[in-house]
Amino acid sequence: MTCCHDADGLDGHDTAFTVDASRVTFGRGCLREVGDRARALGMTRVAVFSDPTVAGLEVFDTVQRSLREAGLDTVAYTDARVEPTDQSFAQAVAFATETQPDGYVSVGGGSVIDTAKAADLYATHQADFLDYVNAPIGGGNPVPGPLAPHIACPTTSGTGSEVTGIAIFDLLSLHAKTGIAAPALRPTEALVDPDCTDTLPAEVVACSGLDVLSHALESYTARPHTRRAAPERPSQRPMSQGANPWSDLGSREALRLLGEYLQRAVTDAADREAREQTMWAATLAGIAFGNAGVHAPHAMAYAVAGRVRRFHPQGYPGDEPLVPHGMAVILNAPAAFRVTSGSDPHRHLQAAHHLGADIAGADTGRDAGGILAEHLIGIMRGVGMPNGLTGVGYTAADAQALAEGAWPQQRLLSNAPIDFDESLLAETFGDAMRYW
Amino acid sequence: MTCCHDADGLDGHDTAFTVDASRVTFGRGCLREVGDRARALGMTRVAVFSDPTVAGLEVFDTVQRSLREAGLDTVAYTDARVEPTDQSFAQAVAFATETQPDGYVSVGGGSVIDTAKAADLYATHQADFLDYVNAPIGGGNPVPGPLAPHIACPTTSGTGSEVTGIAIFDLLSLHAKTGIAAPALRPTEALVDPDCTDTLPAEVVACSGLDVLSHALESYTARPHTRRAAPERPSQRPMSQGANPWSDLGSREALRLLGEYLQRAVTDAADREAREQTMWAATLAGIAFGNAGVHAPHAMAYAVAGRVRRFHPQGYPGDEPLVPHGMAVILNAPAAFRVTSGSDPHRHLQAAHHLGADIAGADTGRDAGGILAEHLIGIMRGVGMPNGLTGVGYTAADAQALAEGAWPQQRLLSNAPIDFDESLLAETFGDAMRYW
Ligand SMILES: NC(=O)c1ccc[n+]([C@@H]2O[C@H](COP(=O)([O-])OP(=O)(O)OC[C@H]3O[C@@H](n4cnc5c(N)ncnc54)[C@H](O)[C@@H]3O)[C@@H](O)[C@H]2O)c1
Ligand SMILES: NC(=O)c1ccc[n+]([C@@H]2O[C@H](COP(=O)([O-])OP(=O)(O)OC[C@H]3O[C@@H](n4cnc5c(N)ncnc54)[C@H](O)[C@@H]3O)[C@@H](O)[C@H]2O)c1
Repeated sequence: MTCCHDADGLDGHDTAFTVDASRVTFGRGCLREVGDRARALGMTRVAVFSDPTVAGLEVFDTVQRSLREAGLDTVAYTDARVEPTDQSFAQAVAFATETQPDGYVSVGGGSVIDTAKAADLYATHQADFLDYVNAPIGGGNPVPGPLAPHIACPTTSGTGSEVTGIAIFDLLSLHAKTGIAAPALRPTEALVDPDCTDTLPAEVVACSGLDVLSHALESYTARPHTRRAAPERPSQRPMSQGANPWSDLGSREALRLLGEYLQRAVTDAADREAREQTMWAATLAGIAFGNAGVHAPHAMAYAVAGRVRRFHPQGYPGDEPLVPHGMAVILNAPAAFRVTSGSDPHRHLQAAHHLGADIAGADTGRDAGGILAEHLIGIMRGVGMPNGLTGVGYTAADAQALAEGAWPQQRLLSNAPIDFDESLLAETFGDAMRYW
Repeated sequence: MTCCHDADGLDGHDTAFTVDASRVTFGRGCLREVGDRARALGMTRVAVFSDPTVAGLEVFDTVQRSLREAGLDTVAYTDARVEPTDQSFAQAVAFATETQPDGYVSVGGGSVIDTAKAADLYATHQADFLDYVNAPIGGGNPVPGPLAPHIACPTTSGTGSEVTGIAIFDLLSLHAKTGIAAPALRPTEALVDPDCTDTLPAEVVACSGLDVLSHALESYTARPHTRRAAPERPSQRPMSQGANPWSDLGSREALRLLGEYLQRAVTDAADREAREQTMWAATLAGIAFGNAGVHAPHAMAYAVAGRVRRFHPQGYPGDEPLVPHGMAVILNAPAAFRVTSGSDPHRHLQAAHHLGADIAGADTGRDAGGILAEHLIGIMRGVGMPNGLTGVGYTAADAQALAEGAWPQQRLLSNAPIDFDESLLAETFGDAMRYW
């Protein structure tokens, strides 16, 4: 545990960590609770957010019916974009500003939940779009107060967005993903109903599950919270505070569950146990990374997703170029963990162990990064990921441009356990081009 | 995991669980954050609660200083009673009603934190004292709205009261402990600073640590949440909802930590690592039992503590008859788990394993209860507990009266994995009289 060994005597470093969590309800059928819960939160006129695919599914009707049965007015916004952009956020904000709901219910994957967060934020505290966006891309202004209540109902397993204060989007003018990070964005409640996953395409289970896996691995290997400078005002300790005993606990359990169930959940939609456990892992990893932060693989992913040229994966709607978020993350992960393992080989080896790798007889100092990377590659192959960044259309010649694209993600890079500069990023992108 | 196997098809039973948690900051020195945090919560005039012992310690000055430096007015109430009663609660309520603070900071063990909760409750929502007390002893009325913000700073390791919506007291007229349980009682934030434990007498570390250990064991072995009837309104799912994957995770980790560190924390006040880890275990177990509930050992403890005749332990102030809460709990635990183990031998054996027992070669069905009980007895001896209920002045002739005293604790008894009637309670008290 990091809290013991590092706490004392590191001058100017933080000695504590802060855990924030919202109310989470988990279990089959719990979507039917949404009406009662919305009313208990004081909502009267509810904006129900979804995307065109999910709006056509039974889960969406279940939510609408429950809200109506609770006597609440609803207005539906079903145009959330999969992998949202600043433009799609702006449309959602316009809808919320016009319809003036006093509460939000989001039904969908991370794309939908993040869109509802943005709509709630800008409809409640009007501002220029870039004002709240993370620096250095945006102004990074603090959110001035609480938002309208928001119940998030994730239908993927999944980003964990239902328990984080983060909203991610593609800033079209920069060809880069970025986000807004503020505690006020965290939904008031989450309703996590594994029944939702029955209709998930295998590819979405794979991509979103690998996003979860990387949330857990990155939280677990992030710079320990005691190696971050203490905040000027303790009540402003950042959400990306680094690895801590709380996030470690959730990360380890999520790794264990994913090692056991992810492959089964991807290959067999009828394996309800596996899909349920994968969804629980997503929530746990969300709570973990929401209190620890992610680092290099996510920072790199934002460039990978932002600069895509032609690739479009199966199982995702439309035909526009798109690297799903989880895929963009995991393609960097083996290369990134090979580099970061030197910071704490024991932790990297333990992570591999929790995922199910055989670490008997391993020489921690020499083998940790390799064992973790190889085990991860095995999982990626098992669920049909492309073979590294070349598999989604990049070549070695892109490594430098990708590094430049990832470099502005300082909030994430500074949470890595080692210092990445642009040239190390380029090298790591190079190593991520092909894995087998 | 209970969520999978039992979720479907049990008619009328609950299929989901709800996790509620408040903000927790953990780490050495974090008490100094209290002023900044109180101000961030909008407090201007803070009632600082403590007991006469803790009010004389440096931790109390640290808190007062931090609040003053943040520019806040403070009024101090340092008369909280160790093991509070309805009378001592009433005094604290009178203080709060008179001084009209707009926020509360409690600095002490469970006794102090619970006293501050009661003061906040009755000063905010005036009522006859028994109105909010758990049925059938009190009216069990719902708390009508939120309370004033409360930052709880535990100085024992500890009850977990800093993260629960529970306040416990001795109802003098009935010679029985009982409590108030309502989500609104949960403190807004907790500041858990292991530095506080430096001054704890060994006996307090032992008693409060065994309370924690039983929180974890009882949450882990409570009736699974899927075997409780579904609530009429889902937003009113009880806090004592039974074992669930969330509480299991915290319970297992707390058991592991206590198995490793409790004995060291008791025997060597200078073992800062052990005291820190014990305190972290207390917080984790508090979060677990706050979302699962405890059962038989706690229900029985309320009679043991309420009917004490002469016993007074070392390390506790004054000389009145007193069985400290943690001691009253753990004295029943081996006998209780022997009886409950039949409900789920595997879980009871796993609990022993997490605590550090050697379970290799055990015959789960036959040995589970015995192995857990014996391992627990070993831990109790190691930290100087009395030898069963005879050690605190009871005799076999008291078993029936104790059972009658425990019987009103239906909120807890109905959370046990088996059905206790009064005669089984009496039998179990009989088995708890002497362990070695
Ligand atoms: N806010 C955060 O904390 C956070 C964390 C990680 C990722 N993200 C963001 O979340 C987005 C990715 O979200 P995601 O992985 O959940 O996927 P998604 O929301 O992008 O959805 C993926 C696809 O699955 C479909 N779908 C969703 N639920 C379905 C269901 N139950 N049945 C059938 N189809 C369904 C959608 O319509 C879509 O086509 C990215 O924009 C990413 O950057 C946010
Ligand atoms: N609300 C809940 O969720 C909950 C849970 C479990 C128990 N409880 C209740 O909490 C009470 C027990 O609380 P506890 O075990 O924390 O002990 P406590 O508050 O009764 O304190 C025990 C003794 O230790 C002293 N003490 C406390 N901190 C100290 C420090 N840092 N240094 C030196 N001395 C110190 C106190 O002055 C007291 O003499 C009981 O009334 C019990 O019923 C409440």
